[in-house]
Amino acid sequence: MLMAHFRLSIAVRYRSRSEDNGRTQGGRTVGRIHNAIIVGQIVLAVVAVGHARGAEISADTQRCLACHRTATPGIVADWEKSIHAATTPNQGMAKPSLERRISAMSVPGEMGRTVVGCAECHTINADRHKDSFDHNGFRLHTVVSPRDCAVCHPEEDRQYGKNIMSQAHGNLNNNPVYHDMVAMTNGTQKFDDGKLSVVPPSPETTADSCNSCHGTVVTFEGVIQKASPFGPVNVSRLSGWPNQGVGRINPDGTLGACTSCHPRHQFSIEVARKPATCSQCHKGPDVPAYAVYEVSKHGNIYNSQNKNWNFKAVPWTVGEDFTAPTCATCHASFVVSRTGEVLGQRTHQFNDRLDWRIFGLPYAHPHPVDPDTTKIRNKAGLPLPTDLNGEPASAYLIDAKEQAKRRSAMKGICAGCHGSVWIDNHFERFDATVKDMNDKTLTATRIMLEAWEEGLARGLADNDSLFNEALEKKWVESWLFYANSTRFASAMMGADYGVFANGRWYMNKNTAEMADWLEFLEEAHGKDRKKR
Amino acid sequence: MLMAHFRLSIAVRYRSRSEDNGRTQGGRTVGRIHNAIIVGQIVLAVVAVGHARGAEISADTQRCLACHRTATPGIVADWEKSIHAATTPNQGMAKPSLERRISAMSVPGEMGRTVVGCAECHTINADRHKDSFDHNGFRLHTVVSPRDCAVCHPEEDRQYGKNIMSQAHGNLNNNPVYHDMVAMTNGTQKFDDGKLSVVPPSPETTADSCNSCHGTVVTFEGVIQKASPFGPVNVSRLSGWPNQGVGRINPDGTLGACTSCHPRHQFSIEVARKPATCSQCHKGPDVPAYAVYEVSKHGNIYNSQNKNWNFKAVPWTVGEDFTAPTCATCHASFVVSRTGEVLGQRTHQFNDRLDWRIFGLPYAHPHPVDPDTTKIRNKAGLPLPTDLNGEPASAYLIDAKEQAKRRSAMKGICAGCHGSVWIDNHFERFDATVKDMNDKTLTATRIMLEAWEEGLARGLADNDSLFNEALEKKWVESWLFYANSTRFASAMMGADYGVFANGRWYMNKNTAEMADWLEFLEEAHGKDRKKR
Amino acid sequence: MLMAHFRLSIAVRYRSRSEDNGRTQGGRTVGRIHNAIIVGQIVLAVVAVGHARGAEISADTQRCLACHRTATPGIVADWEKSIHAATTPNQGMAKPSLERRISAMSVPGEMGRTVVGCAECHTINADRHKDSFDHNGFRLHTVVSPRDCAVCHPEEDRQYGKNIMSQAHGNLNNNPVYHDMVAMTNGTQKFDDGKLSVVPPSPETTADSCNSCHGTVVTFEGVIQKASPFGPVNVSRLSGWPNQGVGRINPDGTLGACTSCHPRHQFSIEVARKPATCSQCHKGPDVPAYAVYEVSKHGNIYNSQNKNWNFKAVPWTVGEDFTAPTCATCHASFVVSRTGEVLGQRTHQFNDRLDWRIFGLPYAHPHPVDPDTTKIRNKAGLPLPTDLNGEPASAYLIDAKEQAKRRSAMKGICAGCHGSVWIDNHFERFDATVKDMNDKTLTATRIMLEAWEEGLARGLADNDSLFNEALEKKWVESWLFYANSTRFASAMMGADYGVFANGRWYMNKNTAEMADWLEFLEEAHGKDRKKR
Repeated sequence: MLMAHFRLSIAVRYRSRSEDNGRTQGGRTVGRIHNAIIVGQIVLAVVAVGHARGAEISADTQRCLACHRTATPGIVADWEKSIHAATTPNQGMAKPSLERRISAMSVPGEMGRTVVGCAECHTINADRHKDSFDHNGFRLHTVVSPRDCAVCHPEEDRQYGKNIMSQAHGNLNNNPVYHDMVAMTNGTQKFDDGKLSVVPPSPETTADSCNSCHGTVVTFEGVIQKASPFGPVNVSRLSGWPNQGVGRINPDGTLGACTSCHPRHQFSIEVARKPATCSQCHKGPDVPAYAVYEVSKHGNIYNSQNKNWNFKAVPWTVGEDFTAPTCATCHASFVVSRTGEVLGQRTHQFNDRLDWRIFGLPYAHPHPVDPDTTKIRNKAGLPLPTDLNGEPASAYLIDAKEQAKRRSAMKGICAGCHGSVWIDNHFERFDATVKDMNDKTLTATRIMLEAWEEGLARGLADNDSLFNEALEKKWVESWLFYANSTRFASAMMGADYGVFANGRWYMNKNTAEMADWLEFLEEAHGKDRKKR
Repeated sequence: MLMAHFRLSIAVRYRSRSEDNGRTQGGRTVGRIHNAIIVGQIVLAVVAVGHARGAEISADTQRCLACHRTATPGIVADWEKSIHAATTPNQGMAKPSLERRISAMSVPGEMGRTVVGCAECHTINADRHKDSFDHNGFRLHTVVSPRDCAVCHPEEDRQYGKNIMSQAHGNLNNNPVYHDMVAMTNGTQKFDDGKLSVVPPSPETTADSCNSCHGTVVTFEGVIQKASPFGPVNVSRLSGWPNQGVGRINPDGTLGACTSCHPRHQFSIEVARKPATCSQCHKGPDVPAYAVYEVSKHGNIYNSQNKNWNFKAVPWTVGEDFTAPTCATCHASFVVSRTGEVLGQRTHQFNDRLDWRIFGLPYAHPHPVDPDTTKIRNKAGLPLPTDLNGEPASAYLIDAKEQAKRRSAMKGICAGCHGSVWIDNHFERFDATVKDMNDKTLTATRIMLEAWEEGLARGLADNDSLFNEALEKKWVESWLFYANSTRFASAMMGADYGVFANGRWYMNKNTAEMADWLEFLEEAHGKDRKKR
Repeated sequence: MLMAHFRLSIAVRYRSRSEDNGRTQGGRTVGRIHNAIIVGQIVLAVVAVGHARGAEISADTQRCLACHRTATPGIVADWEKSIHAATTPNQGMAKPSLERRISAMSVPGEMGRTVVGCAECHTINADRHKDSFDHNGFRLHTVVSPRDCAVCHPEEDRQYGKNIMSQAHGNLNNNPVYHDMVAMTNGTQKFDDGKLSVVPPSPETTADSCNSCHGTVVTFEGVIQKASPFGPVNVSRLSGWPNQGVGRINPDGTLGACTSCHPRHQFSIEVARKPATCSQCHKGPDVPAYAVYEVSKHGNIYNSQNKNWNFKAVPWTVGEDFTAPTCATCHASFVVSRTGEVLGQRTHQFNDRLDWRIFGLPYAHPHPVDPDTTKIRNKAGLPLPTDLNGEPASAYLIDAKEQAKRRSAMKGICAGCHGSVWIDNHFERFDATVKDMNDKTLTATRIMLEAWEEGLARGLADNDSLFNEALEKKWVESWLFYANSTRFASAMMGADYGVFANGRWYMNKNTAEMADWLEFLEEAHGKDRKKR
């Protein structure tokens, strides 16, 4: 039945500037091309000839397109390749439940009858958007928020609200310890009289660095007129913009940017399922998930074989649609077997299959209960999930039972391909690594503590930053880079990364250098090397 | 004739959970899909309609599949995409000799008549497997070994036996010098009374790091019962598992894991020929072959163009099937020209086209004669292929004639595309780099020797590790990272990697830092700076 | 009409060694395969059946091919896949102007009537090539130069002459400051009497490192005879060869190598448009454009989606042919919208959409006016575009008006997808980063200046290299690696790279280490720590 809507087309590709909307090929109107193999000027294409029936573009969106095909042609063409442009919410809701891509049971008003276009997303919930402004007769907002997406995807929005990433802005910027680390990382040092001091970074710099991933505060600063091919138009002046950080604070007060992983304006599930997307924030040495994946067997197979996989199927069938997991498979996707078993439910919480939190802090620890981690207090009273000796702030962290439940959920994904002994042994090794790296971090921390005690570095007791001196920065690398990286390498079986690339080798080398550096500082400061 | 077995199919993809084995598409039984372009719900596919004729699945394997389609659905679906699942050994042996993928001239019993499925590999040679156990009526082993693969691929197994990689476990773990380096890299340092000491790593940690690539010892620890969708089943408890290291010591006493490069359960020649596969062990700074390849012109072309190449053809035709070499092309593959010349024979020895061994040791040297390098003794009596001054332990290394033969074999591959002057000049430059980096390593070593002599570091003479102190670790990086990396960059023309990314810049910077560090140590230890 | 030249072919792939030129498939002669999906032995192909009509191979080239199909089969097969092999200059010149790939209005003699083959490029302009030699009756040159390419592509050659890359050899090797840096980076240190000295690098080493990208001087050293399958043949002996550096000095005196980006012998526009190609020289920490792109949203989308894009279309239509820019899109390509607007003209100058020069020097500065930067003199009289305090040598750099014009040109590309506020805000942030990193570089430089003043490092005043001591090398990394990398990360929105991977974190850590190192040097040299 669906077949009637498609046909195979072999056509000459001869672009004429007068053609409308790319739908005319070879001199004949053929309909929307869904996918094509282009060979020189030959297009071997599958064409949705019946597209328009039951999937009309709303009159409002047609008005947007009339200008924006010229004003921002790239995003219009991008959107036209999206499912949003080809499907109405009503069609989406009519799918068998396992195959649904939207979780709404109903949508407001007439919305279900037209495809999801410009006007649908950029004018909805207008009253709740502080950044709504008048634009050619529309009450428009530039920044589409998770609440707007939730009109069709409410369950995904709810899940994401439990995701620690949705709190990424506040967790970084409203925690005084981390805030200090941001300042010492991005600020500008000055060298005067043989001493370094630090000028804190500007908002532009922080938006260009940490908050690029963690999210900025996007604020509506008023309307300005800009020239356009169609005369002057109103546009909104926004600060903290552009940004697509996962914890972005939107003008409507909501948290997050769905476009971090489902980038505009195709919002493709394929992109979200491919690991390059995650690499935008998870490749550096502080959280090298992608770098580890690349050298894992999973990543090898992905890299060599993903061209044959189906990244668009919902649900996603192990072995049939893909033969090695991507980031999404383990952490987010709705994964089934060919015989109908559900291996993992779709989740946008991300950490509900993770028992240990392995990065961002000196020591690995159970995941925080509340995604807002500024509420945590360790024994020393600091907003950190462990003390400096590694002791967890357990009251704020998930308990052993919840850890076991989450690990079991992850093992369910592994079991799509691996036997139970294989899986159990893997996690035993991972637990050993978690313990190892906590022990190693403690050693590096003890060197640092001695430096602070001896006055060879200035720390909390001196009312000074923990992150501004050379030895402190070496200490930070011990846990932020090397311990984290080794844990990731262990968790995802990318051992090459966890030894010489960014792992155990550097961990131990750094500790050895810290010990010598401490000695050099003692010598330079005329300290009695009492402990040597 | 083969054509009769295939047809082009354009079908609607409509998955129903009640369908059997994915072979029903669009409501009609069509046969096994060999490859497909999937466009939304349209499948443009080449289907093997006649597959079953002459390529039956054995009754034993059918019994395996009956449960494992549910128990481990991913690997079943993966296997179904393999040549193993579509071809019998008899069909493989009937191919023209140049096109054969198996080297056996005969296979035992009835084996030739059915496809190569679960039971064929996991029950063969049962008596020689210490890990054989009873599993639902089968005498099964989990760990399929090179000897099992050799039933159909005996020549490849023989070649791999000469590959130094097959000895990778013992070469690392049974050489006291390297074993110490493993311990200092993976062990946990303790900081007490201002001094560092090292607690050796656990077996779990070494399996999770060095032995991940070098191979673990996989040991059968008995049988346990596990719950399954079909009731309790016997599974084998294995230690050193999971592992796919190239020098894995299998329960049947054999060495290696074919799945390192031909990953389960598709065992694809395409995957083995693609460089991402090699990156699993050859990307880090100690042996950055993949990282260098990525920035070489060969790698650029591969990255941009490989989508158009044929990675499955046997033999592999230069220019037609591929237009730039991958790792496999130069080191392993059977490469021919379109006019029928053989440019390189298939080899699983890997180093028979390599004259210099350029990594893993302080100095480049001719390849060892015996893949078991623990037998080597240098003048100082250590199991190392050179002395600390770079002098090769020539009795254990290939001679100049063999070096010339191997270089000539490599040049034969280059000649597929390059003229002789081009090739000769390239290798002259490479030889210059080999000499250069040996000279530079000697300089770094002389600084280290002075530190050991002055007692500013503790080495062999002090019965202490060579690899535990900061200055020693810097020395290790000189050769293990920077000299190695520069040699790789030169060998594979990835100059960008060999200068600032991980090469000459760091080599010289590290040496300059070592000289200063030695001075700082002298100062801290109150040594007379007699030599400065 | 063009359609008549192609047909869809479904054939069995059965290679027989006796077949001619790969054009026989399935036992039938079908013509040239332009692209194909290969599935086992089935080829689903688009075949140019009418190829030969009006696109003959010249008699000279046919003579080349007669031997080289055997002698260098890979490059012959590669060339056969090129547009050069399928199109005559006359056909190229007959295209509508927007779609033209060649800029010549006429070509000499009979050249327009045959495809562009071996003889066309390797015998043209024979008298101007010092490397012309007699080879089987031809007056041949090995090194095809930009002037040869300019016969059909004169406008591209003119543009490239304004590209600073065309002067890359001289700009590096003829500038005494940079030449010294090359020597200190590639030379071999010696350690004698506790002191380091440096032996300058050999020409082979420099060709293998810096000049691999910057270009060698390729010199004709005479003719030698080599054995071939067809008996002895004359080949040219060349020094500085192989090389494809962007500033290569060719035997005919011209500058550059078009094959840097359009690699032999397919010369594909697809390859040039894909970012992997740029990575050959632009991935390392000194100029990490590719590494930044990889973690940018543009790079994420490219990585996930480029398989669906059309990299061959001329002009290149935003949104239709691609949905995120590659390096070429922003810096080189002729980009249009679907409605016919030109977003950017084709340019091989590359910096005409760039206002700031952000790498290679301590401080960012406006682009030099003349691509030959050896002419520049700063206030101190050195051939550098700024002084050590960051003050620009403005007389030699583009002015604010030209900067504004170039930025505006770049914004025109951005506007294909992004609104004006988005774009303006992005560049404001980038400007802030440019200022920030100049400030930070000044701090690192002030530490270095103090070391030189105190005699703890030996610099210009001591008639010593600026780049040979440990502290100097750390200083170099401040600007060459970390300031550069952060600027790239800001320019291309790859924040992950600009913080912990290779940016702000390391910048500040390095400065802190420099301050301590200075202190350790003071202590070791018995200096009064007067300033501390």
